Amino acid sequence: MPELMSPQTLAQKIIAKASGKSHVSPGEIVTCKLDLVLMHDSSGPRRVKSRLEELGAKVFDPNKVVLVSDHFVPATDPESAEILALTRRWAQENLITNFYDMQGICHVMLPQQGHLKPGMFIVGGDSHSPTGGAFGTFMVGIGATEMTGALATGEIWIKVPETIRININGQLQKGCSAKDIMLHLCAKLGMNNNYKVMEFAGDTVADMPMYERMVLCNMSAELGGKTGIVEADQTTIDWINNTGETAAIDALDWVSDSDARYEKVIHLDASQLIPQVAAPHSPENTHPVTSFENITIHQAYIGACTGAKLSDLKMAAAVLKGQKVAKGTRLLIAPASTKTTELAAKDGTLAILTEAGAIILPTGCGACAGMGAGAIANGENCISSTSRNFKGRMGSPESNVYLASPYTVAACAITGEITDPRQFLEGELNANIK
Amino acid sequence: MPELMSPQTLAQKIIAKASGKSHVSPGEIVTCKLDLVLMHDSSGPRRVKSRLEELGAKVFDPNKVVLVSDHFVPATDPESAEILALTRRWAQENLITNFYDMQGICHVMLPQQGHLKPGMFIVGGDSHSPTGGAFGTFMVGIGATEMTGALATGEIWIKVPETIRININGQLQKGCSAKDIMLHLCAKLGMNNNYKVMEFAGDTVADMPMYERMVLCNMSAELGGKTGIVEADQTTIDWINNTGETAAIDALDWVSDSDARYEKVIHLDASQLIPQVAAPHSPENTHPVTSFENITIHQAYIGACTGAKLSDLKMAAAVLKGQKVAKGTRLLIAPASTKTTELAAKDGTLAILTEAGAIILPTGCGACAGMGAGAIANGENCISSTSRNFKGRMGSPESNVYLASPYTVAACAITGEITDPRQFLEGELNANIK
Repeated sequence: MPELMSPQTLAQKIIAKASGKSHVSPGEIVTCKLDLVLMHDSSGPRRVKSRLEELGAKVFDPNKVVLVSDHFVPATDPESAEILALTRRWAQENLITNFYDMQGICHVMLPQQGHLKPGMFIVGGDSHSPTGGAFGTFMVGIGATEMTGALATGEIWIKVPETIRININGQLQKGCSAKDIMLHLCAKLGMNNNYKVMEFAGDTVADMPMYERMVLCNMSAELGGKTGIVEADQTTIDWINNTGETAAIDALDWVSDSDARYEKVIHLDASQLIPQVAAPHSPENTHPVTSFENITIHQAYIGACTGAKLSDLKMAAAVLKGQKVAKGTRLLIAPASTKTTELAAKDGTLAILTEAGAIILPTGCGACAGMGAGAIANGENCISSTSRNFKGRMGSPESNVYLASPYTVAACAITGEITDPRQFLEGELNANIK
Repeated sequence: MPELMSPQTLAQKIIAKASGKSHVSPGEIVTCKLDLVLMHDSSGPRRVKSRLEELGAKVFDPNKVVLVSDHFVPATDPESAEILALTRRWAQENLITNFYDMQGICHVMLPQQGHLKPGMFIVGGDSHSPTGGAFGTFMVGIGATEMTGALATGEIWIKVPETIRININGQLQKGCSAKDIMLHLCAKLGMNNNYKVMEFAGDTVADMPMYERMVLCNMSAELGGKTGIVEADQTTIDWINNTGETAAIDALDWVSDSDARYEKVIHLDASQLIPQVAAPHSPENTHPVTSFENITIHQAYIGACTGAKLSDLKMAAAVLKGQKVAKGTRLLIAPASTKTTELAAKDGTLAILTEAGAIILPTGCGACAGMGAGAIANGENCISSTSRNFKGRMGSPESNVYLASPYTVAACAITGEITDPRQFLEGELNANIK
């Protein structure tokens, strides 16, 4: 059986380990043990509580569950407040000690709190669960029905996906970031790369800090992929050590075999990229920023798991330093975690942003998910550092959402129209803000 | 007519000037010219636009109107976004240059932007309009019908109210503030001091910074008064000069005659006061903090015109420095203006608050008005630096709101129950944080 000895991609290796095999092949159906389960207040307890009770089932291992309230936070009406209260009660009744209540967006809380280690097989109750792949994990999103089974059994079946390798090389230009890469890829590859693992590699990725690698994997969801993944390296291990956790001895082994078989290998020269903007109403509708003229911006929004980590706030600050938000435009910033806000308060980032006129929102999924502050009116245009600009997602169905990097969103806030951020970045090199 | 020569209170003097008379007496009905009109997004354009159009009337003097969007901000749904869009269009169509869009709560924006000067006669479309009286103005709240007339004519009729003088003397104890005085007065005087001007005087008031005087006048509304007022002094003039505006030459003349006739004179010894807490569901239900035992606090809220100015945030920081918010309790802070957030970001206050675990909300009336973030669930208890704890005001009708100073709210956040703040204030003297 020479097949058993054939080289494997990183995703296959993780699935093989989780299913107790030495090797798996694309197309094979296997049952995997779960190293971790991520839930949030929207798709979590309120959806699974009664189902588990009907089954008479208990959570397979409360220590392997991370619960985060990030959608209905802070509550803006009594109904949301009740959902949060239910979430808190469920956490208590089910002894979920890893419960982060209103402390940040789940995809940012997981690595911030040191829960992710290379080689883990993880399911999450959210479509942006691929974000965890940045840490060399195999992490996929599931719905509430599968979540019920996952919580009851600690296992899930999976058909091993094909992997597409995306090799990104070259130094990103000033004012460009992982977000620009992903918007560009949405246009280039389309959004129907269904059930593929998107494996990001190449020098550009190797040079990226973890926050930027998270953006690549996060927006694998917009490419339609099953998940995104980045091979573990020293940057991954340094992150884990900085959280106070310790990476496993074999952490650096979680890479694809050099001769692994990919369904497709795609090459991207990052040095040729200029800032990108997705026009309404799809991330696929992306074009270089220079092709947008006279597009008035009423609201500039920096938020969500995709675009409001500390690095994103620093990108915005690099553009906004000494500048003012245009009259008639509002700049809303919803940091990705309370820790993000705290660090930005301490290092001066928040002082720069507020002096420029930014309005700081509480942490949470917020307007990206059509919740909390930042809804837009009929006829208004918003440019956002989030990942999706589907019709009506951020408010009125007659509003328009454009997507861009935090650099570009900040530049638009200054001028009140879609603007190339590079003019505000004399001397700034690229997005490798740690 | 010896009546003409009789002494007058400050409120009478302002009404006399505004009505073109040398003297007015309580009970007299006069028509006054408006020096300023304050409107916000909730009671403002959306209520008066069509009425003015039906009348074929224009705004009497756009330069005498201050418009602030502070209720539906930032929009949490398309309906709110439309109200804000209507507000912006109306400001533009009516040439309202003093339009502060999402920059703070109207009662804080007026003095922050230098619009208030002693002797002014002002109407505002909000029940907390008395706040402006802290600056030696006569400022009263009106509804949308009267607002339509005020905007069309630049005038309003008024029955001259009686004045109650509240003399407050003695140094406030550690952990006590203007908020404690007002909660105590709600218990002592009740909430039906209808149609009275509450004139605050005495050494304690003379020693207070403007922010604290604003709390006195602001909560005159809870006493049921027509308005609150404080005589102009050097502290008033220094504030105005600091905004870049210049106080009028006669600014210091805006005081009551020493032999003015008051309906009643009340004395309060501030040095005897300890921190106060209003129990559900009325400010009148106030008791010393020491009489509350084992009251679990799920949410601690610092916000609104009453309790989220820079001084309020500094009171909270004085308590929270080096402390952590209790597990199971959330501390939400909605600064009263974007300038407040900016100054707190620059002077380190925000770093202290966020390190302790506070969640920063956008500026606006917020949960105090049942809007934005901070709604509470069935069975939850909230302690709040706002001014009203009526049943259901902050969320579920089955929730409980307690009112207290920012010192006390911060202390409750640390312990998770109603707590005397003085234990966290070694060495801190009183509320005279500038």
